[in-house]
Amino acid sequence: MKGSTITSTGPETISFLPHQLICIDNGGYISRIIDQTDPDYSSTRNAAKRQNQLISLNEDDFLLPGFIDLHVHAPQWPNAGLALDKPLNEWLNDYTFPLETKYKEVAFAKKVYNHLIRELVDNGTTSALYFGTIHNEANLELAKACIRHQQRGFIGQVTMDNPDQTPSYYRDASAKQAISHAETFIQQVVDLNRTADLKQTPVITPRFVPSCTPESLAGLGALAKKYDLPIQSHCSESDWENDYALTHYHKRDAEVLDQFGLLTDRAIMAHGTLLNQSDLDLFKERGVAIAHCPISNAYFGNAVLPVAKILAQQNKIGLGTDISGGYSPSLYRNIDQAIVSSRMLHDGVDQALPPAKRGTSINAITAKNGFYLATVGGAQSLHLKTGQIKVGYLADLQVVKAPYPTFTDQTPDDIFEKIIYHTTKNDIKQVFVQGKLAKEGHYETQR
Amino acid sequence: MKGSTITSTGPETISFLPHQLICIDNGGYISRIIDQTDPDYSSTRNAAKRQNQLISLNEDDFLLPGFIDLHVHAPQWPNAGLALDKPLNEWLNDYTFPLETKYKEVAFAKKVYNHLIRELVDNGTTSALYFGTIHNEANLELAKACIRHQQRGFIGQVTMDNPDQTPSYYRDASAKQAISHAETFIQQVVDLNRTADLKQTPVITPRFVPSCTPESLAGLGALAKKYDLPIQSHCSESDWENDYALTHYHKRDAEVLDQFGLLTDRAIMAHGTLLNQSDLDLFKERGVAIAHCPISNAYFGNAVLPVAKILAQQNKIGLGTDISGGYSPSLYRNIDQAIVSSRMLHDGVDQALPPAKRGTSINAITAKNGFYLATVGGAQSLHLKTGQIKVGYLADLQVVKAPYPTFTDQTPDDIFEKIIYHTTKNDIKQVFVQGKLAKEGHYETQR
Ligand SMILES: [Zn+2]
Ligand SMILES: [Zn+2]
Repeated sequence: MKGSTITSTGPETISFLPHQLICIDNGGYISRIIDQTDPDYSSTRNAAKRQNQLISLNEDDFLLPGFIDLHVHAPQWPNAGLALDKPLNEWLNDYTFPLETKYKEVAFAKKVYNHLIRELVDNGTTSALYFGTIHNEANLELAKACIRHQQRGFIGQVTMDNPDQTPSYYRDASAKQAISHAETFIQQVVDLNRTADLKQTPVITPRFVPSCTPESLAGLGALAKKYDLPIQSHCSESDWENDYALTHYHKRDAEVLDQFGLLTDRAIMAHGTLLNQSDLDLFKERGVAIAHCPISNAYFGNAVLPVAKILAQQNKIGLGTDISGGYSPSLYRNIDQAIVSSRMLHDGVDQALPPAKRGTSINAITAKNGFYLATVGGAQSLHLKTGQIKVGYLADLQVVKAPYPTFTDQTPDDIFEKIIYHTTKNDIKQVFVQGKLAKEGHYETQR
Repeated sequence: MKGSTITSTGPETISFLPHQLICIDNGGYISRIIDQTDPDYSSTRNAAKRQNQLISLNEDDFLLPGFIDLHVHAPQWPNAGLALDKPLNEWLNDYTFPLETKYKEVAFAKKVYNHLIRELVDNGTTSALYFGTIHNEANLELAKACIRHQQRGFIGQVTMDNPDQTPSYYRDASAKQAISHAETFIQQVVDLNRTADLKQTPVITPRFVPSCTPESLAGLGALAKKYDLPIQSHCSESDWENDYALTHYHKRDAEVLDQFGLLTDRAIMAHGTLLNQSDLDLFKERGVAIAHCPISNAYFGNAVLPVAKILAQQNKIGLGTDISGGYSPSLYRNIDQAIVSSRMLHDGVDQALPPAKRGTSINAITAKNGFYLATVGGAQSLHLKTGQIKVGYLADLQVVKAPYPTFTDQTPDDIFEKIIYHTTKNDIKQVFVQGKLAKEGHYETQR
């Protein structure tokens, strides 16, 4: 591929390089990046051209790493944007659980999951970490949809067996059965991978502490260890969730998960808006990553995650859409909201307070911070060699057409910021996952 | 036109009516709305068809009123999304003022303004209130661009003559000259309107209190009265702006504007994030409207405007993008951010505080509130008979293709919420202003 590249090189830095030749090997990895000033540039380009393997970007197109979404409730896609005005219990009991239970029908799962994965890929998301439902067969459809649309999926069979905190029509029958289903799903994905081009990964997925019994949490911890698998759950998302752990376990939410072996360096915990410093220290010690979901947090998080502080402490952190607690399938929109929310955390929100008492000392994050989270941060959280345009890394890429002109000479920062703030799926012309075309764009707007 | 209509009927209510026949008269007003059950429905539809005047919407298209944007800095369009990480003084002095001064070149103004108006119309905005620059000729190009692209513009020649608070390269030479230019511009727009299909309106526009001398403020107040014109400015946007009025006039920002006759029932004041109750009472007494700009406020507003409280008190209020303090030209994205910001105002943002001290008693707003602001609220602020699909109202309309399916039977609220949260310009197929086509959509995404 030939074109200008934009990639994150650290929380606060990007590299912008015009006229690069990106060579991709048969395994889908970037094998070489040749600058225009390199003597090999022309000969390599011409050789690729002769073999009909050269993809040339237009002057106003830019090559970025694909995004990594660390938190998606796949079954909730039909509800994205719905009922967000409702209180959490109503949102869960009248909208979310009744929808999730529908995935006992495989045909419904297939229809929704194919639509969702297509949509996420079209929005530039090349890897994603999914909550499925409690239904084995539906979750398998999710894995198949990822393979079909060429997305690297991490997929969780959800465990929720606590009769006190789950509806009777939608729960695992027992801890034992829940663990057995979780193990079955692991086997099913292993089987599926035998014939798949793009490998999918099963993920140990306790919904959250309140929805599980101590038995199922212990069983899931053991499974994660037995198969050396990623783990995902929610942690300290809301005051209610925090209080539940304190009341029922006399511990903090993070400590409960840790007690059952669920905080490992392959664990990714959603939200964490109410994690305190000792929780963050524990996360760092264990290598646990946080999936920051800024849109969803405004609705259900009860506070803003102090991202600048977490980046400074070098905890692992990436971004998630949290469909459908978050309404948008686009990580661009989540980057934008992460920045906006961080400014509101810094300045405060209540005009009735004097300025000195209104805000906090936590800095706002920048567009570069946000881009880092959606790429490098996500890749580190999932232990993937992706999220950067770099030799030895997976060729997970998106081709973005600069959404708006500046009408004057543009600096690399200008181009970068316009892309971060304005890109919609229609500006994403092509997406590649592991070197293969996942989105062939015919999205040109015609007038 | 034939199709399903969605229109706001109050701050908390919408009307959703399938299969309506909207009859539009030659003046561009809605003359009749005929329900499918009405005996006249078929004959009227057939007559329109015979005369080749029937526009039929598809089943998954919906007819909404066009949006009204109450605050746009037109010259700042090239900077939308740029430098938002910078502090305000740097953003103003290194980015905003140097850009605005470029509009002394008419060719530059023409290029940018045509692009901007096209873009706003494409995003469903049928009326807009603009700050121009201090340059007569460039502002006239803005009016011409509105006429060309069929948008109802309200356009302000900006006044900024205070040498202490404006850069030497970009200010009015004196109060006298500023007032003379403002009056010239009024005449120019009157002249332009003689031959224009769609009338444009000149607006009295002191940039804000700090950038003006008492002489120019007084002169502008007199001009507004003489010509009975709308007035726009900024009021209590930031702690800094509030302090300026207290220090220099020993009054609140709103009181300074009032002293000079600039708070009338045709006045629209941007932001107002730090208006107190006495300011709001004064606004209500005078009939002043607030242009709420939620994206911009996160960057420069120092607090969240308590929209629910303002709606409950029945102050006039609509929505603005505040390009380029706000990065997005879409009022859909501003509705979404208004909702999100209001939730953060209610719940609070600082996780270090206990829940009881974190939030405020001000309620979050809903998607219906946001839709009301972008349509009815804006129309009331500008004294326009638009913003609703209703007999006797202007046919300012947008045709929106439902962005995402729900995969099950949809309620009107489901369709409405999906549209509010997900619509991008590519989902807006056609836009009509005063009955005339302003956007002919060929935005279908093809795969
Ligand atoms: Zn979640
Ligand atoms: Zn402004």
